[in-house]
Amino acid sequence: MTIELRNLKGTYDFMPREQRVRQEIIRKLQVIFEKYGYQPIETPIICYFGVLASKYAGGAEILKEVYKLDDQGGRELGLRYDLTVPFARLVGMNPEIRMPFKRYEIGKVYRDGPVKTGRNREFVQCDVDMVGVKSVMAEAELMMMAVDVYKMIGLDVYISYNNRKLLSGIIESVGIEPAFVSDVILSIDKLEKIGADGVESELLQLGIAVSKINNLLNYMKMQPDELIAAFVSKQKNEWIDQGIKELRELNSYIDVLGIRNSLRFTPSLARGLEIYTGTVWEVFLIDGSITSSVGAGGRYDNIIGAFIENGVDYPAVGMTFGLDVIYEALVLKDAVTAKLPVDLFIIPLGTEKICLKLATELRNKGLKVDIDMADRKLKKSLDFANKQGIPYVIILGENELEQGELMIKEMKTGKEYKVCIEDASAYAKNLDFSLSN
Amino acid sequence: MTIELRNLKGTYDFMPREQRVRQEIIRKLQVIFEKYGYQPIETPIICYFGVLASKYAGGAEILKEVYKLDDQGGRELGLRYDLTVPFARLVGMNPEIRMPFKRYEIGKVYRDGPVKTGRNREFVQCDVDMVGVKSVMAEAELMMMAVDVYKMIGLDVYISYNNRKLLSGIIESVGIEPAFVSDVILSIDKLEKIGADGVESELLQLGIAVSKINNLLNYMKMQPDELIAAFVSKQKNEWIDQGIKELRELNSYIDVLGIRNSLRFTPSLARGLEIYTGTVWEVFLIDGSITSSVGAGGRYDNIIGAFIENGVDYPAVGMTFGLDVIYEALVLKDAVTAKLPVDLFIIPLGTEKICLKLATELRNKGLKVDIDMADRKLKKSLDFANKQGIPYVIILGENELEQGELMIKEMKTGKEYKVCIEDASAYAKNLDFSLSN
Repeated sequence: MTIELRNLKGTYDFMPREQRVRQEIIRKLQVIFEKYGYQPIETPIICYFGVLASKYAGGAEILKEVYKLDDQGGRELGLRYDLTVPFARLVGMNPEIRMPFKRYEIGKVYRDGPVKTGRNREFVQCDVDMVGVKSVMAEAELMMMAVDVYKMIGLDVYISYNNRKLLSGIIESVGIEPAFVSDVILSIDKLEKIGADGVESELLQLGIAVSKINNLLNYMKMQPDELIAAFVSKQKNEWIDQGIKELRELNSYIDVLGIRNSLRFTPSLARGLEIYTGTVWEVFLIDGSITSSVGAGGRYDNIIGAFIENGVDYPAVGMTFGLDVIYEALVLKDAVTAKLPVDLFIIPLGTEKICLKLATELRNKGLKVDIDMADRKLKKSLDFANKQGIPYVIILGENELEQGELMIKEMKTGKEYKVCIEDASAYAKNLDFSLSN
Repeated sequence: MTIELRNLKGTYDFMPREQRVRQEIIRKLQVIFEKYGYQPIETPIICYFGVLASKYAGGAEILKEVYKLDDQGGRELGLRYDLTVPFARLVGMNPEIRMPFKRYEIGKVYRDGPVKTGRNREFVQCDVDMVGVKSVMAEAELMMMAVDVYKMIGLDVYISYNNRKLLSGIIESVGIEPAFVSDVILSIDKLEKIGADGVESELLQLGIAVSKINNLLNYMKMQPDELIAAFVSKQKNEWIDQGIKELRELNSYIDVLGIRNSLRFTPSLARGLEIYTGTVWEVFLIDGSITSSVGAGGRYDNIIGAFIENGVDYPAVGMTFGLDVIYEALVLKDAVTAKLPVDLFIIPLGTEKICLKLATELRNKGLKVDIDMADRKLKKSLDFANKQGIPYVIILGENELEQGELMIKEMKTGKEYKVCIEDASAYAKNLDFSLSN
């Protein structure tokens, strides 16, 4: 019986050309995360379903999309759907962890849902979180880190940011009843996408008075200073007080760090409903070639504590970087530097042993080297090297071996150099490998 | 309701101290694999069960241990149990791949079986395979690579190797009937573990004549040259002919590469029953601190072709490196260099903004820097830095800020230096970070 060779929709093979770039992105993320004092951890993909299903985890919506499985021992298990639940579990299981705890994790997560652009069933998350810090200094540092990350990766971005307390306060201040607050937040969150008219019509459908809506939409146009000024003389509420305090402090850090130009205050930004309690932010490409965010973060002071249920406060703030979307953005920008599979390809013509030894010498000098073992015609070997984009080929036939010489061929120009075999590795070391074919 | 926070047995959290080392091992593997011309790929963990269950995949034994799951669309899925089946599938699905194809993949695999030492339910495999090469030159190169890998990682190893054709041929030559060959191979494969007496009693139980057993065990003591000599004058069979030819060729490569001292010929080595068709090898620690192998490889010329079923030959050879066992070996050798979480810890005392800016400057100079945001007493901050093993701490109070100076404290010695704030990052860059606390 023939097996149908296929992948589940929403899961992918990454071939070398793409995987080399993905690994390079991950490597850059790791370097920057560690510069900022974040420590790597790794947690299991396969979890007890009960842990994933905690009501303080992602909630009912996401639970529908958890891959469930039973094992041979009849245990109810599931595949993790994010890296935050495993983080909270790990913090809860290891009371010896010294606070604040800054960790990063890069790993696969799973969603058993419909597949569409930007929504896969298996994907990699790159998460950076800090638990144990109340100060917005943490947010400022994460934003600085985000600026560093995208600069290193080579993407021009801006960070759209807001404060959830402030948004809640404004909604309360215009006189919207508590029962409608959640719906209003969900609607306002879409302001950038559906525009003021779109939001207005949604709020009208909820039965909210036009004057309140106009009032609210008016605030949504303001910059921090204007908002602060607008509320100076008005009746304020506790949310506005706290939100403004946090925003002011965050802004003062942003100014000290000199990243004001990378930030755009967006008073309508909420990042969904329940999780976030303070600062929220999303990172977008300046050229708009991809409209969804390429990274996002926020403060969630209540989640971990509620999850662990030991009476301790676990203020937390974190940020996630999208590997797939970053790769996609680099492709659209034509900024994927096609890394060479190898620097040099050796074609032995009856000289396999000496060539394998030479390959070892070249590798010891730090070069990436492949050697033809396919026992084929020279033309086919050259064609293989050519199609792989390998910049240099070494050819060594039996006659040349007798004369103690080999040939180095520069594939882009076709130029050939005769080099003494003993000098070959020293010579090759100094070739210009940027001359990619 | 309180959730019980726990991990499934046989799956693990890796905390920063260990994960830093694991990531460093992986990084070293990647560098060496790429030097040898192997290209990275990534395949899904979640697969169609039908693909995993192919009879040409791992067989019935392993299939019992596959984690099965159904998705919302009613599809039968499973978690991959190795990286070879996904490799064969990928080769089959992508006929445009140019042969030979050298790939590596580092990723998690799953087994729903009993947990014991060395057998987990979730673990990382690091596999390097080449498809499209018949020559034992491929084996020689992989063995050279293995020598490089363990040298770079810092483990002293030897490679135990054999040829499956030769082993089959010897078994046939002593007159063991075809019906017993599989059982004899399984028994002989344990020679190093259970000794000649153990093998003898197992073979006696199979009803094999003492003379044949003695004859066989006698061959199992021989080195390649002795075996070749022993069969020169004897009736040979095709397996012996081919096995000796491959072994001779491989040995000539081993000599040219100068790795003879790292190799030990072990004529009883089989690496299980069905998969391997030619050279097989296992890597062991010279000090024997771990008795199981720390890596293994072999030629399997029939698996991929049988899996793809397109009439094409896919000769293949590959090797796997055990991340967990390598880590364990480094721990036992006390060779885990405790990498520092950060180089420098900044403690602001009412000087948060200037300190955050300083942290950024230091990070831009390539240092790993953390900054205390926990708003706690100096003593507690110092204690935190101390327990983390951070070598240097910068302390900046408001008075010091006025005087334009900060203090750098060398934690190991307790020495303190006053440094002008403007010079701090240049000064810190030149500290000796090997002075770990």
